[in-house]
Amino acid sequence: MKKWTFGVDLGGTEIKLGLFDSQLQKHWSIPTNCEAQGSFILKDIAKTIKECCDEYGITMDTLKGIGIGVPGPVLESNIVKHCVNLGWPRVAVGTELSKMLAELFECSPEDMRVMVENDANVAALGELWIGGGKAYNSLVMATIGTGVGGGIILNGKILSGASGGAGEIGHIICVDESDVDGRCNCGHKGCLEQISSATGIVNYAKRYLEHAPEVSILRNRLRDAGDITAKDVLDAAKAGDMAAVRIMDKVFMYLGKALAGICNVVNPECVLIGGGVSAAGEYLRAGIEQYFKVFAFAGIEDTPIRLAVLGNQAGIAGAAYMIISDK
Amino acid sequence: MKKWTFGVDLGGTEIKLGLFDSQLQKHWSIPTNCEAQGSFILKDIAKTIKECCDEYGITMDTLKGIGIGVPGPVLESNIVKHCVNLGWPRVAVGTELSKMLAELFECSPEDMRVMVENDANVAALGELWIGGGKAYNSLVMATIGTGVGGGIILNGKILSGASGGAGEIGHIICVDESDVDGRCNCGHKGCLEQISSATGIVNYAKRYLEHAPEVSILRNRLRDAGDITAKDVLDAAKAGDMAAVRIMDKVFMYLGKALAGICNVVNPECVLIGGGVSAAGEYLRAGIEQYFKVFAFAGIEDTPIRLAVLGNQAGIAGAAYMIISDK
Repeated sequence: MKKWTFGVDLGGTEIKLGLFDSQLQKHWSIPTNCEAQGSFILKDIAKTIKECCDEYGITMDTLKGIGIGVPGPVLESNIVKHCVNLGWPRVAVGTELSKMLAELFECSPEDMRVMVENDANVAALGELWIGGGKAYNSLVMATIGTGVGGGIILNGKILSGASGGAGEIGHIICVDESDVDGRCNCGHKGCLEQISSATGIVNYAKRYLEHAPEVSILRNRLRDAGDITAKDVLDAAKAGDMAAVRIMDKVFMYLGKALAGICNVVNPECVLIGGGVSAAGEYLRAGIEQYFKVFAFAGIEDTPIRLAVLGNQAGIAGAAYMIISDK
Repeated sequence: MKKWTFGVDLGGTEIKLGLFDSQLQKHWSIPTNCEAQGSFILKDIAKTIKECCDEYGITMDTLKGIGIGVPGPVLESNIVKHCVNLGWPRVAVGTELSKMLAELFECSPEDMRVMVENDANVAALGELWIGGGKAYNSLVMATIGTGVGGGIILNGKILSGASGGAGEIGHIICVDESDVDGRCNCGHKGCLEQISSATGIVNYAKRYLEHAPEVSILRNRLRDAGDITAKDVLDAAKAGDMAAVRIMDKVFMYLGKALAGICNVVNPECVLIGGGVSAAGEYLRAGIEQYFKVFAFAGIEDTPIRLAVLGNQAGIAGAAYMIISDK
């Protein structure tokens, strides 16, 4: 019986792997070798999977397949269009990894099922399977970290989009020009992530502190430590520092408004907040929810806003679940 | 062989009906009787369908089913949650119409297939079947009329949303408070439809003309006719009236920006512009497209922006296609 599945979360510095049956049985990671246009990456993945199979006595007959999340747009659950972080040009990840694994397992590539999707989408699917979205069939997940990413799950399946570009919620242009300096990495001005990513929060906080009259522990921190982090801002806000509270209020407003707009369009069963910044927990969730309810259309405003719970294991879980849930 | 399908577009003043095999064979309409909480509406539909069947010699054996678009949110392709225009409370439209038709056809309700969806979603599906979206499997349609509605089709199917609320693009809050007076019908301030519906265009034009220095034929029209229409504004803009050009430029900016945000999230194969205002044709399409390209994320900016072509037949076509495309 085919009971085993691997989930792979391919990042720019490390590759996380998980072995699943009905749940996670083992997880580990290997470094990402970006040399030579990332041409060793898939070989390294195939090799470490084969080693794990040997350790667990997993054969072709008991292996369902391998799911992979990659940091770039993906077509047809197979082709990565480009992937700057890994040095990849267009790569048919599914086809190539199938071939490499087939060689190691001495079987036909057709018998080695590999599915590929964008990493933010895969993380959203992981949360739907065994995380914060476990009770639901559809969700929108906002991943708030260095940038702001997103994943959309409808009827238990990832929405990839026509060109692998669905879920790019961080680049919705919805921030007043007066609230941001300069341009987003994408070249635009006013992207959601310019104010609500970890970087965006820090940038907005510094702007705010320059002109604001309030006494603030953030100003001391800037002076003493030379810089502040998004965590500093959130911690200060939680502690009642009024400048920090006002900074986060603005961030919550934009996140709540953008997520309300998204939900007016997609109407998911729930919204999940994940990514590094979501470590701020209930304070962040409630702050976003408060504005979500203000800006959402009638009937949408009660969409539950929840925290993601799997942290950096969401990727391997979702990658495995692509295979497990696929007919 | 089951070859016949009815498509019904249920509006507040008239009910449009179409008889389809592989294409439209007959279309007609009857008035909507909203008396007694709209309790005659489904009976009237059942009766006129039966009459058409008698005329064409259509029996249970040759009838595939009936699709209906209704002006309200719909659950499980059956239940209308509420429908202010028709006076309806919660109505299980699918179940009830099946029963009424089964009585007339002297068969079991299970043999009388009825599918119900929101009218804007159904119109989008009609355009995908035989209209402006014929070449595609997924699309976002903006219906710009008295209000701004929307429909989303993914993999050839309507996205209804968890509570029947998907596609409400007119109520995305994205308009600067300084560009609108007062509130939207929905109670919010800054909804896309407050500036880009026919009503919104007129309101914004009047605001603009109050303070603008330009000579404008719209000002003469306001004085002579006492009022202006969205068509007046669009015609003046097409004729090069600078005030009208600047008014429409603002409208295009908001529509382009909102549609770019939606496409960053959903990444459809194409965007369609429909509704009464879309009679303005290429001028409107190109105006929206120009801003769409400015605001869309990399890879999304080339999403084709097209005009809907079916006009007020999109509803009956999409309603029929729900049945035709359903397995």
